[in-house]
This record gives sequence, structure tokens and C-alpha cells, in this order.
Amino acid sequence: MTSLFDPVSNATLALTMALIEKPSVTPEDAGCQSLMADRLAKIGFNIEMLPFDDTLNMWARHGQNKPLFCFAGHTDVVPSGPVEQWHTPPFTPTIIGDTLYGRGAADMKGSLAAMIVATERFIALHPEPEFNIAFLITSDEEGPFINGTVKVVETLEARQEKIRWCLVGEPSSGKQLGDVIKNGRRGSLTGHLSVKGIQGHVAYPHLADNPVHKAAPALAALAAEIWDNGNDYFPATSFQIANIHAGTGASNVIPGELKVMFNFRYSTELTAEQLQSRVYAILDKFGLNYQIDWTYNGLPFLTDSGDLVEATVAAVEKVRGITPRLETTGGTSDGRFIAPTGAQVIELGPCNATIHKINECVSIPDLTQLTDVYLQLLVNLQQRLSA
Amino acid sequence: MTSLFDPVSNATLALTMALIEKPSVTPEDAGCQSLMADRLAKIGFNIEMLPFDDTLNMWARHGQNKPLFCFAGHTDVVPSGPVEQWHTPPFTPTIIGDTLYGRGAADMKGSLAAMIVATERFIALHPEPEFNIAFLITSDEEGPFINGTVKVVETLEARQEKIRWCLVGEPSSGKQLGDVIKNGRRGSLTGHLSVKGIQGHVAYPHLADNPVHKAAPALAALAAEIWDNGNDYFPATSFQIANIHAGTGASNVIPGELKVMFNFRYSTELTAEQLQSRVYAILDKFGLNYQIDWTYNGLPFLTDSGDLVEATVAAVEKVRGITPRLETTGGTSDGRFIAPTGAQVIELGPCNATIHKINECVSIPDLTQLTDVYLQLLVNLQQRLSA
Ligand SMILES: [Zn+2]
Ligand SMILES: [Zn+2]
Repeated sequence: MTSLFDPVSNATLALTMALIEKPSVTPEDAGCQSLMADRLAKIGFNIEMLPFDDTLNMWARHGQNKPLFCFAGHTDVVPSGPVEQWHTPPFTPTIIGDTLYGRGAADMKGSLAAMIVATERFIALHPEPEFNIAFLITSDEEGPFINGTVKVVETLEARQEKIRWCLVGEPSSGKQLGDVIKNGRRGSLTGHLSVKGIQGHVAYPHLADNPVHKAAPALAALAAEIWDNGNDYFPATSFQIANIHAGTGASNVIPGELKVMFNFRYSTELTAEQLQSRVYAILDKFGLNYQIDWTYNGLPFLTDSGDLVEATVAAVEKVRGITPRLETTGGTSDGRFIAPTGAQVIELGPCNATIHKINECVSIPDLTQLTDVYLQLLVNLQQRLSA
Repeated sequence: MTSLFDPVSNATLALTMALIEKPSVTPEDAGCQSLMADRLAKIGFNIEMLPFDDTLNMWARHGQNKPLFCFAGHTDVVPSGPVEQWHTPPFTPTIIGDTLYGRGAADMKGSLAAMIVATERFIALHPEPEFNIAFLITSDEEGPFINGTVKVVETLEARQEKIRWCLVGEPSSGKQLGDVIKNGRRGSLTGHLSVKGIQGHVAYPHLADNPVHKAAPALAALAAEIWDNGNDYFPATSFQIANIHAGTGASNVIPGELKVMFNFRYSTELTAEQLQSRVYAILDKFGLNYQIDWTYNGLPFLTDSGDLVEATVAAVEKVRGITPRLETTGGTSDGRFIAPTGAQVIELGPCNATIHKINECVSIPDLTQLTDVYLQLLVNLQQRLSA
């Protein structure tokens, strides 16, 4: 007797549980990639482990010299947070009803398991498909994204190994599995602003220069600025002050420096350089003595049409009976590092309601259907290429 | 053979050194008050020790039922700071050339010694003066000013014991001894502002409400506001933001709350209530969701004329050959707690260049001359009352 809810008969469930059991908190991989590598090696993948510093990465490829489809994802998870707030131990996968609980269940060990099982089934159906399949897996997606996908992509670029289609397994779904596919992401740019003043005693303001007073109207102008109006695919560019700090804690000391950290999420209407110029222009208008260090978190990217989007939408429609919306909203993903190579990149994974939270979980029927969607996507690509 | 620089022959120097030796870091008294009490008891003062919680206070009075002149001061000192930066150990009084080094030398153990020695000499000249003399000494002037002068004044008020004239020994002098007498102080009012928003992810700004963005134009308006133009005795009221904080440290989180601590130093043109109303009006104009907790650090006070100012100016002129300026600038002092009882209050003490700093020091000739000025002030009062 087989049951959807029994790991003995549900291969995706079993592999998801095996991955959750490994406490792979960023940047630890904790053995997840070797588990995946074993499965992929058995069906003919060539495995390359690409460790960089504290990060483990895996590049696994099946076949050569044909157009390359790549599953991309990460084995690392965010920390569990207070364990006593979890109903079940975060690194002990636990089935309650039709739901699997555990850190990484939705982001994104369920996706990794679905990718592996879908690929096993596809290779069983098509031992020599019309395209090659690769896995680009990292253990630092939740971390500083320095030694993960960025370095693997550099390695691939150096040897001119090109990805044509890439599906990132990030949990893109909202209310139900497959309702949203991300076909792009906004750019992210962070500014670390320091406004200099002169420290002093509040009783002698003429001897001091209060950087908070100097900066306040400039920050108001930055917050009020309309940077663009977005476009068909992107919402308007958004500016947010995430942190602001000045002062010694004492009530009688005028601070000597104000530190502000702000972040842009920007559309393809603007470049990082244009945003920077406009920030400088606004700050200069208010005569501030300042310095900004910039962190480039990723360029915006968009895969607005093409065979990958079509094949994926068709796969969701066939398996789920719904038509997914294409969106570019939300946070960043490692897709931003793959898209600049010219690849078509989309993201499709489970519902994201519990990711990064206490009691993270995934629906077991969704795990099964996600496997089916990934398999159908591979089948659709095969059909398009052999047509 | 007697020498100004020999504690054997210079009583003020000797007593200052004995006080510096006692490491009376706020709120510790470390035996300073009992040393002073012994000296005052010997010349007929009635001593009352008034401890409140961690603070020691002394109320010593000579004579009854006559107009009361009070020397006010504090035995506590600010911490030494890094001892290795001192040229001499901070609590080992050390004479180098014509200067005495040690924590509290200028603020205000030199003044305390000068008050005691001047009073001893005056009582020797006038065993039954036309006025009574008191000492109001606390050990928490540098601290939170909760259990010090405030509580002693409450005690005196409760038994209707009134001070007519009060000289606070704070280091009022600038370039040379006696060049400045403080005849008032600005009020000090601190606001602890919390602006509420809604925390969220920078990728979903429509679900959040950034309190930094909301507050920036309001803070700019507060910083630009002209609160008053001061008057003949007071500079214009000054507003300063001393601290501002928001954010979790992460670049992708919109903060849920902004905290701002600001301080007013205000003239007698305005009341604390008027300032508060105007702050509320400005914040309301910008539609902020906020709360303010207020700390009342002291009302402004002014002793613009009268026998105390005249007698003190005359004493400085006679001993020092210069006419002091009357000023209300600078920080607060315990005079703010005594003035509201109706007392005339002025401040006169050594040069303040090194107070609260590494290598605090006082000029030994200034110690001697300060003793002479205090004595001359008592003599002048005596003459005015017997005229
Ligand atoms: Zn993820
Ligand atoms: Zn002082």
C-alpha cells in the first residue's frame, strides 16, 4: 500500500526529510550536497564540487554540447530562531496531517528534492534528452553571497560553459502552488551614508555642528523623491532608510556623525549609476559633508518571454490547472547572478508563507505536485526541441 | 618661612589636597563632607547630615534667625577616565610649578576649600555677623541630581528655612579668575520621542510604514524653528537632537520605530509648557504617530541685580582688579534647584578649562585669591547689613 504521506512511497518527501535532518545553517552544507551528488551520479551526472572559502558549491551536469537547462538552488537555511518557540524540533522533519515541518522545508529543501526526483524520472523516460541538465547548488544563498553562485558563475564563464535556461527553486508561490512565477527581480543597491558634523556640548551649540539637523531635510527629500514609475514588468523603484544612528546616549552631547543605511529596489528603468548620481545631487543641494560606501546587491533582471517561460507556464497549467502570474516583486535571489550571463531565468517553488519563520513547513501534496511540475517542464522542453 | 606653594602655610591648598585624596566619584562622598564638617563644627556650625539613598548631603548652619547666606557645592567628581593618560595619579594631589593637579581640583574641591578657609577667617573677624552662614553640600551634582540638592532644598522648604543669598562654587571663570560670574542659567528640557511605523521587508514597502521617512521633514522643521530671540540676559533658546536611532542593522528591513532624544536649553522668554506645545504642533502638522516622554532638567533662573550680585562684583573688583561679566551661558548647575525658592543665586569659582578632563588642575595663586574673594564677599555683605 502506498501513501502520499509515507516517505517509503513518496520519494520527494523522503529526500526532503533527509535534507532537513542535516542542520545546514548558512554557510554550512552539512552533507546535503553529497546526498544530492550521490543521487545524481547514479543517473549519469558528472559531479564537480566547487568549495570557496567557507562555502560548498556543487556543479553537476548530465550530457555535453547540447543546450543547457539548469536547476539552481541552495542547501543552506536561515537559523532556526528560538527553538522553544517551534512546535517540533526544527531539524527533525515531522509530519503532522498533510504538512511537513522543519527548517528549510519551503526554502528550499523541498524544491531541491523535487528537482532531483523529477530529474530521475525524466532521465528514466529520456536517457538521452535533446538538452543537457545541470544542478548549480550553493550553501551561501542566505549568507553574504560572496563564495556561492557568484563564484560558480565566474568559473563557468571562464570556461565558456553557458546556461540557456535556469529554474531557481525559490518559494515563489503565494496562496497556492504555482500561482506565481518570478520572471525577474528588481536590482538592489545599498548605500552606507556618513554625514559629518562637529561634536559638542548642547549648552554650546555655536561650537558644534549637528549632522542630524543638517541631514534631516536631505533625508526628507530622498524619501519624497520619485525615482521612476516602473514599467510593464517592474513596480516603481523604491528607496527605504533601513538604519539611522547618531549620538552617544547622553542628552547633553551634540553628535559628531550621523550614519544612515538605505536600500534601493530598482527597476530596469534605471541603472545603479543613475541612482547614485541622483543621491549625490540631492545631498549636495543641502550642502552636506558626507561620504557614501555602496554595496551592489544585484542588478535587475527580466526574462519576459521565450521558451523557458512558455514551457514553465504550460507545465503549471497542465499539472495544477491554473495559469501562473509572472511577477518581479519581492526579494532578491541567486537568479540575479545567473541572468547576466545571458541565461533565461525564472523562479518557481512552494508557497512562501512560512519561510524564514518559526514552524516553517511545506504541504506534502505540494511537494508531490512540484515534482510533477518540474518533470512536466523538462518534458515540455524535450518536446519543443524535438518538434 | 611661608610659601604660597606649601600646604603647611597655605590652608586652602592643604584642604584642597586633602579633599582630592578622597576618590569621591559620583555618588561617593568618600569622607569629604566629614572633613568639612569637622572644620565647620570647630567654628560653631551646627551640622546636619542628610543622606538620601546613595547620596550624602550636608547642611551646616552658623547662627539662627538672621538673613541666610549659603555656600553651595558638591564633593563628588566625574570619573578620572583612562588613568594612564594622566601625567600624575588623579587622586594623588600633585603640585607641579604653580599648579595643583588632581580630579576635582577645579570642579570643585578647590572652591570647597576656599569657602571653608574664607568662612574660618570671616568668623574669626566677626564672631557674630549680621547674617547667618550655611553650607549646602551634596555628593551627586555630577550624577542624576535626584538625591542631592533637590532633596535638601525640599527638606529646607518643608521647615520654611529660607536662603536669601547663595553662592555656588562652580568653576565659572574663563581666561582668568573672576572674569565671569554666572547670574543665571538657561532651563534644560529633554524630550524622548518615539515615532511609530510598521516594520517590514524593503522588498514590500507597501506593507510597511517607514517612521524615518515620516519623521525626516518634521525633524527638519524642528531643527529650523526659531524658538525665541533670547533677551538681555539669555541667548536664544536652542534645540538640539542628541540621539537618533532606528533599524535592526540589516539592510533589508524597514524599521518599525524611530527613537529621537532632543534637548532644549531655553531662556526666560519661554516656559517648558510652551516649548512642549510647539513641539506637539510641529509633529502633528506632519501627521506623525508618536509619543514623547519629557525629562525636566531644570527651570531657567536669573539673579539680575540685588545685594548679592553687587557684593560679589565688588569683591572681585577689590581682590582681582577686574570687573566680572555676568553671564547665563553654559551648562546647568545645582543653582537651578535653589533659585526657585526665591534665593538670589550666583556662581563663582576657578577657571574651567580643565574640568571633566584628563589632567584637571587649578592654579595655586587662584586658590588663594578665590579664598580672598569669598572672604571679601562675606565682608561686603557684613558692611551692607551693618550700614
Ligand atoms: Zn531561498
Ligand atoms: Zn561642578
